[in-house]
Amino acid sequence: MRDDVKIFSGSSNPVLAEDVCRLLGLPLGEVMISRFTSGEIYVNIKESVRGADVYVIQSFCHPVNENFVELMVMIDALKRSSAGMINVILPYYGYARQEKQDSPREPITAKMVADVLTTVGAQRVITMDLHAAAIQGFFNIPVDHMTALDLIADYLRTKDLSNAIVISPDAGRAKTAERLATYLDLPVALMNKRRPKHNEAEITHVIGEVEGKVPIIIEDMIDTGGTIIKVIESLVEHGARPEVLLCATHAIFSDPAPQRIQHPAIQEVIVTDTFPIQKLHAPKLTVLSAAPLFAEAINRIHHNRSMSMLFAESSYQGCENGES
Amino acid sequence: MRDDVKIFSGSSNPVLAEDVCRLLGLPLGEVMISRFTSGEIYVNIKESVRGADVYVIQSFCHPVNENFVELMVMIDALKRSSAGMINVILPYYGYARQEKQDSPREPITAKMVADVLTTVGAQRVITMDLHAAAIQGFFNIPVDHMTALDLIADYLRTKDLSNAIVISPDAGRAKTAERLATYLDLPVALMNKRRPKHNEAEITHVIGEVEGKVPIIIEDMIDTGGTIIKVIESLVEHGARPEVLLCATHAIFSDPAPQRIQHPAIQEVIVTDTFPIQKLHAPKLTVLSAAPLFAEAINRIHHNRSMSMLFAESSYQGCENGES
Amino acid sequence: MRDDVKIFSGSSNPVLAEDVCRLLGLPLGEVMISRFTSGEIYVNIKESVRGADVYVIQSFCHPVNENFVELMVMIDALKRSSAGMINVILPYYGYARQEKQDSPREPITAKMVADVLTTVGAQRVITMDLHAAAIQGFFNIPVDHMTALDLIADYLRTKDLSNAIVISPDAGRAKTAERLATYLDLPVALMNKRRPKHNEAEITHVIGEVEGKVPIIIEDMIDTGGTIIKVIESLVEHGARPEVLLCATHAIFSDPAPQRIQHPAIQEVIVTDTFPIQKLHAPKLTVLSAAPLFAEAINRIHHNRSMSMLFAESSYQGCENGES
Amino acid sequence: MRDDVKIFSGSSNPVLAEDVCRLLGLPLGEVMISRFTSGEIYVNIKESVRGADVYVIQSFCHPVNENFVELMVMIDALKRSSAGMINVILPYYGYARQEKQDSPREPITAKMVADVLTTVGAQRVITMDLHAAAIQGFFNIPVDHMTALDLIADYLRTKDLSNAIVISPDAGRAKTAERLATYLDLPVALMNKRRPKHNEAEITHVIGEVEGKVPIIIEDMIDTGGTIIKVIESLVEHGARPEVLLCATHAIFSDPAPQRIQHPAIQEVIVTDTFPIQKLHAPKLTVLSAAPLFAEAINRIHHNRSMSMLFAESSYQGCENGES
Amino acid sequence: MRDDVKIFSGSSNPVLAEDVCRLLGLPLGEVMISRFTSGEIYVNIKESVRGADVYVIQSFCHPVNENFVELMVMIDALKRSSAGMINVILPYYGYARQEKQDSPREPITAKMVADVLTTVGAQRVITMDLHAAAIQGFFNIPVDHMTALDLIADYLRTKDLSNAIVISPDAGRAKTAERLATYLDLPVALMNKRRPKHNEAEITHVIGEVEGKVPIIIEDMIDTGGTIIKVIESLVEHGARPEVLLCATHAIFSDPAPQRIQHPAIQEVIVTDTFPIQKLHAPKLTVLSAAPLFAEAINRIHHNRSMSMLFAESSYQGCENGES
Amino acid sequence: MRDDVKIFSGSSNPVLAEDVCRLLGLPLGEVMISRFTSGEIYVNIKESVRGADVYVIQSFCHPVNENFVELMVMIDALKRSSAGMINVILPYYGYARQEKQDSPREPITAKMVADVLTTVGAQRVITMDLHAAAIQGFFNIPVDHMTALDLIADYLRTKDLSNAIVISPDAGRAKTAERLATYLDLPVALMNKRRPKHNEAEITHVIGEVEGKVPIIIEDMIDTGGTIIKVIESLVEHGARPEVLLCATHAIFSDPAPQRIQHPAIQEVIVTDTFPIQKLHAPKLTVLSAAPLFAEAINRIHHNRSMSMLFAESSYQGCENGES
Repeated sequence: MRDDVKIFSGSSNPVLAEDVCRLLGLPLGEVMISRFTSGEIYVNIKESVRGADVYVIQSFCHPVNENFVELMVMIDALKRSSAGMINVILPYYGYARQEKQDSPREPITAKMVADVLTTVGAQRVITMDLHAAAIQGFFNIPVDHMTALDLIADYLRTKDLSNAIVISPDAGRAKTAERLATYLDLPVALMNKRRPKHNEAEITHVIGEVEGKVPIIIEDMIDTGGTIIKVIESLVEHGARPEVLLCATHAIFSDPAPQRIQHPAIQEVIVTDTFPIQKLHAPKLTVLSAAPLFAEAINRIHHNRSMSMLFAESSYQGCENGES
Repeated sequence: MRDDVKIFSGSSNPVLAEDVCRLLGLPLGEVMISRFTSGEIYVNIKESVRGADVYVIQSFCHPVNENFVELMVMIDALKRSSAGMINVILPYYGYARQEKQDSPREPITAKMVADVLTTVGAQRVITMDLHAAAIQGFFNIPVDHMTALDLIADYLRTKDLSNAIVISPDAGRAKTAERLATYLDLPVALMNKRRPKHNEAEITHVIGEVEGKVPIIIEDMIDTGGTIIKVIESLVEHGARPEVLLCATHAIFSDPAPQRIQHPAIQEVIVTDTFPIQKLHAPKLTVLSAAPLFAEAINRIHHNRSMSMLFAESSYQGCENGES
Repeated sequence: MRDDVKIFSGSSNPVLAEDVCRLLGLPLGEVMISRFTSGEIYVNIKESVRGADVYVIQSFCHPVNENFVELMVMIDALKRSSAGMINVILPYYGYARQEKQDSPREPITAKMVADVLTTVGAQRVITMDLHAAAIQGFFNIPVDHMTALDLIADYLRTKDLSNAIVISPDAGRAKTAERLATYLDLPVALMNKRRPKHNEAEITHVIGEVEGKVPIIIEDMIDTGGTIIKVIESLVEHGARPEVLLCATHAIFSDPAPQRIQHPAIQEVIVTDTFPIQKLHAPKLTVLSAAPLFAEAINRIHHNRSMSMLFAESSYQGCENGES
Repeated sequence: MRDDVKIFSGSSNPVLAEDVCRLLGLPLGEVMISRFTSGEIYVNIKESVRGADVYVIQSFCHPVNENFVELMVMIDALKRSSAGMINVILPYYGYARQEKQDSPREPITAKMVADVLTTVGAQRVITMDLHAAAIQGFFNIPVDHMTALDLIADYLRTKDLSNAIVISPDAGRAKTAERLATYLDLPVALMNKRRPKHNEAEITHVIGEVEGKVPIIIEDMIDTGGTIIKVIESLVEHGARPEVLLCATHAIFSDPAPQRIQHPAIQEVIVTDTFPIQKLHAPKLTVLSAAPLFAEAINRIHHNRSMSMLFAESSYQGCENGES
Repeated sequence: MRDDVKIFSGSSNPVLAEDVCRLLGLPLGEVMISRFTSGEIYVNIKESVRGADVYVIQSFCHPVNENFVELMVMIDALKRSSAGMINVILPYYGYARQEKQDSPREPITAKMVADVLTTVGAQRVITMDLHAAAIQGFFNIPVDHMTALDLIADYLRTKDLSNAIVISPDAGRAKTAERLATYLDLPVALMNKRRPKHNEAEITHVIGEVEGKVPIIIEDMIDTGGTIIKVIESLVEHGARPEVLLCATHAIFSDPAPQRIQHPAIQEVIVTDTFPIQKLHAPKLTVLSAAPLFAEAINRIHHNRSMSMLFAESSYQGCENGES
Repeated sequence: MRDDVKIFSGSSNPVLAEDVCRLLGLPLGEVMISRFTSGEIYVNIKESVRGADVYVIQSFCHPVNENFVELMVMIDALKRSSAGMINVILPYYGYARQEKQDSPREPITAKMVADVLTTVGAQRVITMDLHAAAIQGFFNIPVDHMTALDLIADYLRTKDLSNAIVISPDAGRAKTAERLATYLDLPVALMNKRRPKHNEAEITHVIGEVEGKVPIIIEDMIDTGGTIIKVIESLVEHGARPEVLLCATHAIFSDPAPQRIQHPAIQEVIVTDTFPIQKLHAPKLTVLSAAPLFAEAINRIHHNRSMSMLFAESSYQGCENGES
């Protein structure tokens, strides 16, 4: 890499940033990030970035708003330091679940995040497994939307999947489940949440044949894990084997997720390191590193080479448009 | 309605615009729309709109690009005529299926449409049953996103549904199917498209129990009808009754849809009039009028009254956020 | 040319684009452009354009709105593919005749085109013989405004012009006619349209001495040819020789222009290939290739060399400002 | 007029502003405009304008740049004082003659003026007889483009025009001359400037029959009057009567115009008061007041009534588009 | 107040918002603000705001970034709910101390805050005693900049000030001290921080005569109180009486300010309630309510009445410009 | 320097521009700047700037508005000539004293200047000793804010300063005085303007010990010199020695400053050449050249090297944030 590439890390996931730098043979850029007692963030870029191709890595990890504002302040500092190109790497794009109005008078916070990042000076976004792919369209700057699905699929292929079935834990994940099932040549089942009457408890149905099968649940993220546990229990009730392979790109692991993923019907939890993870707490946990994907992205972007093989949408798909 | 409300219609669906005006007791605004032999569109607003609350109704019907450019030109003319507020009613939002990149180096045309409409002068958008709800977030102007789902559900409730099942024809419609099934208190099944190997034909699986059931297929739009026919044939193969109730908000009906919807396994096709429809050609066709919904929307917007009961997202939903 | 230049062609005039590429020794960029049965355009750029200096060639030929929207979609796709610089070559700039309001509550569509192209991502425009030069000012991105007047003048100089006169077919072309007359050292006459009373037919007067002269009519475009025929007949009535040399940059040739230009008083029709033309239909037709001009423009822009010798405004002119 | 209309005057033409206010029965808004010894302008709006419909009247009179910056500063002050709507009345739009590039690497200053006014906070522009109508399209805010042509024509009709001819003093004015000739039912002639060879003096030809006729020269502005005198002398040489009626909307009258308009072949100079004028210096000078037009414009804009009868483009015209 | 005024409160200072509403006789607007376990903020406006004049009150209190993002999300929700006008009341404008670069490659976070608020949809800002008045200029929307200086001065006037002196605790406050001294007709002294050599401790000098005087220290904010204590100790060393009246608009009171303001040389601490304050913890603390100022501001803005008597800059000042 | 750097000078300070070019070994770019008799500015860039890194040098010298508009026109011309990067060097940033509202309904003209320059096409600003550092934040493009304080301090160090004191002539300069005093290791005193009662004359107090000292007055600019003379007389009254060293970056020298700086109590006036200065008129005047600073800035910007050693904020300062 040329010396006009500079990579800076916010506070959210420094280990991932360091891994990316090591893979690229680049030092992590020096930046001072501190907080005044009032809670206000102070940032000072400690090396010249004039004209440089700058990459800022920041996940929307806990504490999400602190990390968001910190990212905004970093971008502003870089912009005012005459950086050549400000590329923002968001391993996890926060507020992605608020990408449309589910009730009247809600915000569309995922769009707000896009507008704010663009306003403060982001010129390109690199992100991974967005909760909704349409978030790409919230930007008018280029968005490189990468996926960890191949990473997860490659790992799963090392296992005996002869009796497995891919599970979409809700309607919103049906397309991703379909895609993973295609990769692995497995059948699919879908969970269907229903509330019989207004005050009755929600029931989770299984649509598809899961009896005697090893469920591979594919999610974009595991937050508190509440829904997942209901899905697993429903699967087991419907005769699925209590050897669930639970897969997700983003391991948010809000409380009480760390406890929940110890559920006896879970065989293994497979995630990436877009969030910083304490492995020791979770013996069943397999963490795949996304750093090589981000390093390759930086490499290709900087050298203006095609990134299509890294993209979420690059796997084979029939033409989905124009026919219904 | 006060006389400072003006409603103009593009060429795409004048009957709908007239119906809306009649319901509101307003005359349709006078506008001259013509084309030069070169194909260039000429628009001349024939009455003063200074300071008025203007509504332009234009569907992205066939010919879609002509209607799109015509809408752009109309908005420009209104803007330069000092209209007070330019509200754009898009009964059908075109290019909505290109709302994300499905392959690298694709456009996100649905976003482009949003940007272009805003640039030329649209200040509010009223639309119905977007192919993807996140398209709302493509705008920074207010978007009132209405639904015809209640209209369709109310009509279906007039029938014997004791043996019916709601069918999501693909993974992308799973949420809508879930919502309609909740309204009607019916079970759900999902179609799953798969291509066993790269050069083999795509197979449509049914996930869920359809045997002996009357399928209610819910779509946002019927374009050529090709996918629908495959879905229907697959349903019948799996034992569903050949008495399909095919429902969709938007009846694009591109060739050869008019022939396809004559398929013997279809009992009835239920659509709205967001596209202009020749009823005579389709004896099985039931067209529900969306005009009262748009008229009510104009009425409420103009008088600054809440529109939540008209919105796509206003039906009951459990909190979908924050849990996985 | 370096390999970081990519030239793409829309559907409007592929022959011109190929000619430009051949002159530059570059392959035409691969792009898939198709239409769904609904009429929606689908574009997929088939090669990486990351960081490249991209040129999109699209004329506003028939069908003008299809070509306009197609261009918008192509630009959006290029922008989202991280193109370095998006240069748009518009051999013919459509809607240029609607560059001001001729009646109240008209659009200024030529401005709308400029705003839309800029919004979707155009970063530079290269165009030729705009109907009104002020359209350049509709943009805030650089506009390279070229002319085919020298091309046409050079061709005319190969003929015997000893008895010729340059004709401005209406008041709007008077400056161009003056300029061509200066090039060729010929006198000028001007046509003057008048409607004696409100319901009487328009009469075309000739201002200037045309008797016994060979008229050289200079237009920026020939659309239906209706006005031109009236001009020619009026010229002949006033004693001009029925050997008109009819010159124009843009051969729109809307119906019934192909018939009209067979008029016996026309000796030859001289146009460029900014529109695709079937030569066989018009024995009197001389088509001069504008491709070398566009190729040279790309060459100079890419190498940051002055383009002034290619510009519409670069021919000698006295200072027109500040004196009246 | 309601008390939420406020009219402010810049320093350029306070008499006109006062006339407009008197016609509307409104006091002129109080504003302090001063200059520090450094030359910097200081503005202080001396009365509340919160929510008011504000009109600022400023002509681009001498000293043009002082008046331009003063206008910018006034608009900024109004914007920061929470004015409801900032309407800018430019009786004369400066820099209008630089509305396109006449040589490479020129500015398009007329566009720059439009961008700057919009940036500092103008929300509507009312102007009169633009040098080029396309300047309207330089704005994306509404532009009300008025004309004094009717005012001038009405005045001319009080005279004996039986032997008159309308003269377009150069190619750029041909359309306006055509329009005035239509109003007055008179013939037209056009002046044609030519420079035989590069170092020879420019010659002004007359195209059309002027012998024995009384020339009515119509200009948008009279600046130094140099071109006009050449036109007049050429007309007289060609046999026109030395009783020229010289008409223009804008009387810039830069030196030595006041001397030049005393030319014996000029019978009368007819202008409006968009520039402040010392009548005493020019016995032949007739100044028509444009104040009633601006007052009526404010009245109609404020009450959202159609302004089409005041517009430059509102006189009858055949369809000029789509035919050539 | 009319019913088209709606006031909403963020989480930062609900007591102040309630006080403002009570003074205006308006109910506080209903809004649901919650956080998911992931830390993401969820907002839902619970009443229609269509066309309403909306005021959102949010101080940048602790936790400052949470409150900042919450405000952004609230504004987005209001914008998408078709609010007529979104006024943002920032009793305390956070990040105001980062209003310029004090070292290279710093952000200008106060500008970033302005840009972000405008981007998400704020249309007017009402704030109080900005750390630097130039922050007003960071916005292009109207900013109403109020002051609590009169409030504080009025309170001080109730005391015996015969022997008092106004102290500017650093160079940046010199102008405010000068203004308060003018109000109270008292002398001024200025503290001067100096670091004799690079590694030596900073020394605070007193410039002016403080011996035997009661110091009135005027600050815009008290954060940790560290500087203030040094100032007080230096004043006492120079012979000032240990009966300091410590005044500030904004009581940030970060740790250990609550301890520090118990310093025996402090007689009384006088602040406003722009931050929520627990009175019990601080017996010496006097909290003046700013609610009447904000209520009056809303009242005047809504009725388009002049606000100049509430403004920070409205007290008498000689012309400070143009002379040096 | 590479040949893709082009430096152009406006009319305000051509000597400075030539000095900068000579230091860089570059020719001054050819540009024609003229004025029509109407006062309108005409600019024509006489050499190609396609893709070049362009620097325009223009001070806001007298006549300030002419120079401001001239700069705008030059930038527009460069933008339309496809300049690669337009850097604007403002040795003196005009209207900097109107950087906040000192009374209600004032403009914030310094912000307006920033917005206008950005709108017309400036992409970076290089300036020196802004009247208020927060003006940097008025821009969203990079601003390189340089200082002449080191230049002045270095010159002062050549003198005997054993008995000197740094004087801040008003509260607004207190920080700069503090900084210069730190450089020179000298004490500080502050002038305090007060108006005892509304109609009485303003009195200037001295805060600090000046008796028997040589005052070094530090200003950012000397305009008319009126305030300075009052300060000097007040200092002398308080016992300071009548050997004032009067220092300022910007020598505006409006009338009657040239006379005033001859005041017998002034020993020497030390300024830079950001304004063009006639040395002969002022025997006490020392003009330090700022050209090497601007030349070095261009050099560093063009080669993407850190500029921190040239910056106004780069001298040592304790952390001023987060503590009060």
